[in-house]
Amino acid sequence: MKIIKYPAPENWSNLIQRPALNASQLQERVQDIMETVRQKKDAGIRQLTQAIDGVNLENFKVTEAEINEASKAISEELKSAIQIAKRNITRFHREQIQQKNIIETMPGVQCWRQQVPIEKVGLYIPGGSAPLFSSLLMLGIPAQLAACPEIIVCTPPGKDGNISPVILYTANLLNIKNIFKIGGAQAIAAMTYGTESVPKVDKLFGPGNQYVTEAKEQAQRAGTVIDMPAGPSEVLVIADESSHPAFVAADLLSQAEHGADSQVILVTDSERILEGVLKEIRIQIKKLPREAVAEKALENSKAILLPSLETCLQFSNQYAPEHLIIATQEPLSLAQNVRNAGSVFLGQFTCESAGDYASGTNHTLPTNQYARQYSGVSLDSFVKQITFQQISKTGIQNIGPAIEVMAEAEGLQAHKNAVSIRLAAIKNEKNV
Amino acid sequence: MKIIKYPAPENWSNLIQRPALNASQLQERVQDIMETVRQKKDAGIRQLTQAIDGVNLENFKVTEAEINEASKAISEELKSAIQIAKRNITRFHREQIQQKNIIETMPGVQCWRQQVPIEKVGLYIPGGSAPLFSSLLMLGIPAQLAACPEIIVCTPPGKDGNISPVILYTANLLNIKNIFKIGGAQAIAAMTYGTESVPKVDKLFGPGNQYVTEAKEQAQRAGTVIDMPAGPSEVLVIADESSHPAFVAADLLSQAEHGADSQVILVTDSERILEGVLKEIRIQIKKLPREAVAEKALENSKAILLPSLETCLQFSNQYAPEHLIIATQEPLSLAQNVRNAGSVFLGQFTCESAGDYASGTNHTLPTNQYARQYSGVSLDSFVKQITFQQISKTGIQNIGPAIEVMAEAEGLQAHKNAVSIRLAAIKNEKNV
Repeated sequence: MKIIKYPAPENWSNLIQRPALNASQLQERVQDIMETVRQKKDAGIRQLTQAIDGVNLENFKVTEAEINEASKAISEELKSAIQIAKRNITRFHREQIQQKNIIETMPGVQCWRQQVPIEKVGLYIPGGSAPLFSSLLMLGIPAQLAACPEIIVCTPPGKDGNISPVILYTANLLNIKNIFKIGGAQAIAAMTYGTESVPKVDKLFGPGNQYVTEAKEQAQRAGTVIDMPAGPSEVLVIADESSHPAFVAADLLSQAEHGADSQVILVTDSERILEGVLKEIRIQIKKLPREAVAEKALENSKAILLPSLETCLQFSNQYAPEHLIIATQEPLSLAQNVRNAGSVFLGQFTCESAGDYASGTNHTLPTNQYARQYSGVSLDSFVKQITFQQISKTGIQNIGPAIEVMAEAEGLQAHKNAVSIRLAAIKNEKNV
Repeated sequence: MKIIKYPAPENWSNLIQRPALNASQLQERVQDIMETVRQKKDAGIRQLTQAIDGVNLENFKVTEAEINEASKAISEELKSAIQIAKRNITRFHREQIQQKNIIETMPGVQCWRQQVPIEKVGLYIPGGSAPLFSSLLMLGIPAQLAACPEIIVCTPPGKDGNISPVILYTANLLNIKNIFKIGGAQAIAAMTYGTESVPKVDKLFGPGNQYVTEAKEQAQRAGTVIDMPAGPSEVLVIADESSHPAFVAADLLSQAEHGADSQVILVTDSERILEGVLKEIRIQIKKLPREAVAEKALENSKAILLPSLETCLQFSNQYAPEHLIIATQEPLSLAQNVRNAGSVFLGQFTCESAGDYASGTNHTLPTNQYARQYSGVSLDSFVKQITFQQISKTGIQNIGPAIEVMAEAEGLQAHKNAVSIRLAAIKNEKNV
């Protein structure tokens, strides 16, 4: 990790930079894939799956028999852990269901919002060496709570043409049946354009490698809506004299193991802690199976010493991390001033991996400084808030004159007329 | 209007098409404007404002004196109408402020969401012949309720270098002081890149002509977030035997007068009403100052006869209109099955112009079929929902084992470690 001591605020803008991605070659390759699927549909996917995943599939859709079989391959311990996670994630996201609340803004003028599910949602779940069943929980649970009528899952097949049983077990637990053995950009293309076997969806969700990310960007330009722009995962930890260097080091490493491009930042007002954490990282990293990846990520990472905890938080707000861990003595008082972050973890026992898996909050979060504008995925991501209004005879008499004056002032006579014609009809009725 | 009787559902997909826009020449022109502002900043804006708006401005920022002066130019009647609208819009949007709700998903595991405002928001308000002060109300009120620390307004200057007093009056009423005399794509560019006088914003809002729309698309590709993709305004009216042809005609015309590309659709199960509405349109259109525009819009518009009200609603759900007016006898029962729409108006006295100006709901709504995925602008558009969690010693003991099992199953050892190291420390503590 690069150590930076007391950088002046005017130099922070360099420190918050994420590494730029070189994407032009990737763009063309993904464009080819998208075009192949758009034109050749299922045949195109078959061809790409053969070429990229090295497996020849006649049918992509997972059968009921495969789903039922999957459960047998999972240990009871893992099943029970997944069920705990499901329960907590459901508890947290269920509170996001909003009841209709009719607001009478003026006598006779009733307005309300109603949560209505997006009809067809497509969830991309990375597979291969590490099947990310946790992402399926994080996307599938709010989609089900939102009552989306059609939930499609795409996940890459292994060399044997099968999908990881833990993904199938999790899907089944969430009562999701439309699962397709399609990975990478071709999966995004299939859900964007639709094929003979894969439905075209209204909105695409889910993490993925750079091909998937680029395909989602291209899907967006083609008019399909996506959950959020994606980038490498990030954590920023704020530590003080009271923090446990071993805990902080473990949290930083759990981010670093994600990928060589992961962003890991430590900010602290204590030089002793900074040194303690760096020392602990050296000890813990040796025991990691993904040591090489973590080592690579740490090369781009920074440990920053700042004069006070308030300055640490100011830096964090400017950086806008995906994950923010406040591992200080009084985390709640600092938390009040968090302006930009995806998800915040407070205190010494609140490790990021709790939120990644099981505490209840969503782990699909904005990266690459988009925490300034975007929220993480929630039930809100799977619904529209449609506004409704109903105005009575009294209501239009109360509000009509104001509308007439405003429409006239904007030069929109027909807008005014729509009120005047009603007010005149009410008046005539009275005269009868 | 084109009359279509009993189209078969398999032919609906043609009927719901919006006209395609030819945009390639526009793209280049807007790219030039964006680039000029990015490179030359204020000098670039000055040059473009001279060339496009025909006015030579040294300073773009509206002075306090100009704001104070504006109030004098507005009639008391208009002031009072704007104040009524402000009160209703505030009442409706205030309910969208969410209180922190701590959810204990497991003993010792506390999770919550917090609404945190987006820091810098840019509102584009069209001006010129018709200053759209209603759009300023619709964007400025939720921005203020969300407590966005910096609210920037750009609106084009007239030939005299001034901004319409009603825009300034409205801004002042909302306590918005950062107003710039910049219009079109150059305004979007200024807020996207920032200049010596105009701050770079985090998110862009507001309607505009095709230059503004294209500039917002380009801003989005440059990493600035926008409210939603824009297209021509639309209304779909569902009418039945009980509807008043004159009211329905007035509502259709109030949409048609917006622009030649406005989309206006009538669907009904009553041939008598269909004919009555068409006859009324002929009568009312003659009296409109914007008759030519409305006439042009009607050329692309459709009156569709369908076998039942349920089929009418099915058609509407497939069309996904920006505005949906249900002008039937029992609007509430149909309303329950609305799947895709921006905003819904129920019953014979609920004209769309009520929602455009003063009832309280927002008039910034998804067009071009994006109502399938997007909500209209609301307070939600000006905040992030940041998730927080705090886990106690007991909490990590309760949830830790599940996290360890799941992290291991995903092959992420460091994620597991972050838990194990804490559980071990707690255990050691006990042993002491």
